[in-house]
Amino acid sequence: MIGVFDSGIGGLTIVRELVRKLPEYRLIYFGDTARTPYGTKSPETIISYAIQDAEFLLEHGAKIIVVACHSASSVATEALRQRFPEIPIFEVVSPSVKKALAVTRKKVIGVIGTRATVSSGIYQKKIAEIDPEVKVYGNACPLLVPLVEEGWLKKPETRRIVKKYLIPLKMRGIDTLVLGCTHYPLLKPIIQAKAGRRITLVDPACEVAEEVAAFLSTHPEIEAKLSKNGKHQIYVSDLTEAFEQVARLFMGRKVNLLKADCEMYHVIKPNGS
Amino acid sequence: MIGVFDSGIGGLTIVRELVRKLPEYRLIYFGDTARTPYGTKSPETIISYAIQDAEFLLEHGAKIIVVACHSASSVATEALRQRFPEIPIFEVVSPSVKKALAVTRKKVIGVIGTRATVSSGIYQKKIAEIDPEVKVYGNACPLLVPLVEEGWLKKPETRRIVKKYLIPLKMRGIDTLVLGCTHYPLLKPIIQAKAGRRITLVDPACEVAEEVAAFLSTHPEIEAKLSKNGKHQIYVSDLTEAFEQVARLFMGRKVNLLKADCEMYHVIKPNGS
Repeated sequence: MIGVFDSGIGGLTIVRELVRKLPEYRLIYFGDTARTPYGTKSPETIISYAIQDAEFLLEHGAKIIVVACHSASSVATEALRQRFPEIPIFEVVSPSVKKALAVTRKKVIGVIGTRATVSSGIYQKKIAEIDPEVKVYGNACPLLVPLVEEGWLKKPETRRIVKKYLIPLKMRGIDTLVLGCTHYPLLKPIIQAKAGRRITLVDPACEVAEEVAAFLSTHPEIEAKLSKNGKHQIYVSDLTEAFEQVARLFMGRKVNLLKADCEMYHVIKPNGS
Repeated sequence: MIGVFDSGIGGLTIVRELVRKLPEYRLIYFGDTARTPYGTKSPETIISYAIQDAEFLLEHGAKIIVVACHSASSVATEALRQRFPEIPIFEVVSPSVKKALAVTRKKVIGVIGTRATVSSGIYQKKIAEIDPEVKVYGNACPLLVPLVEEGWLKKPETRRIVKKYLIPLKMRGIDTLVLGCTHYPLLKPIIQAKAGRRITLVDPACEVAEEVAAFLSTHPEIEAKLSKNGKHQIYVSDLTEAFEQVARLFMGRKVNLLKADCEMYHVIKPNGS
């Protein structure tokens, strides 16, 4: 199976694109709703969560892993590749960087995302490696995730807040804007309206699905391992009615969420105090 | 020590009141920032987290426990009392209920809080036990926590959103409003302005501090166990710069957060699939 994990159910936007582009493969998704969100947490914590999430997917039959969460993609990809060297690991940052570089004309790119994603500076780093002349400006937008999860996709409050978040980026003269969080594609109409026609939006969900498709077409030995029959499996570590509603919003249709058979608990290490 | 736990750093509003009212006692605080927030999660998950949080405090010397988190107070208090029958456990709902009943004239009370708190119906239940004639209306306000954590305490967007959340309660004719989440006292000026002068706000932080003070004055055998020297200890399960800033906002002064020596991880139980 193609394994996909995310801090919550936002990653279903990625699942939707994967299913659209690669309808023949079976998917397994893990959303860590018991500890969501990741974007406000420290890199060490995000890395430790990401490794556990990947382990869950591998134990349940995933042969490749897609990190749908931008915060985890930004800070945990290296750690995941070190921990699981045999497993092809895809993440949402690299294909978005490639796309953003392909579309920018003025070489000024904006990135919006969670605090963890933006303050990781990962986009700046990856873009500078390819084209050091490109300027990259980030702005953390912590209110957009709760606004989407409230279902306030078209409310005037949402418009005002999106506008406010985009002002500093527009003042820098960006012509390309990366939607650096799984939730933001749902706000695409508002973001495009407030950004203006001259700014091209990059949706990482589309880009990562393209990348996985290209990889499978050139790696038949991996492709052969993927199961092609049976239902997709969508697991979450915590289940609430609100999550089911939001999952529906993200997938565009009713989704059966399964409660993953795992528990999260504190392990208190012995210490001196 | 007096132990206080919360899903994050919002519970520091309770610590502030406890320190103000009971300056002679040493406090230990645990904020579960690695899994914050609780208010969007299921009752089972919140109960399991609350038990772990209480264990952390007890292992570190707490003799009484104050549940600062409204979501945990609403759904986990019974489970905590069953698990730790020897330990006096205080929570924020009961003293707020008492206060709300004391101040309402028209017997119509509003409650705002997270989804977990509001959908638990705990206020309705507790108030009906004391005075079944009182009407209680709740409204979940999931955007207020992220707005406070962004520091948007006076922004026009915040005013508009507060107004929107209060409309259905005002239409019910409430004359008393319980601020059923640790973050809301920071929005008191806006909430009061949008609620209007005729609505009295109930701040659970003040009420629970009163209750603890009253308990200690009548239980000298417990009071004697509390340490009266040394610094307060403020632990969090995850540490970020943003948390430190928000902690300062909540306490009204610089706070030294200590990273708790604990790890959160998934324990995957063996299962058939």
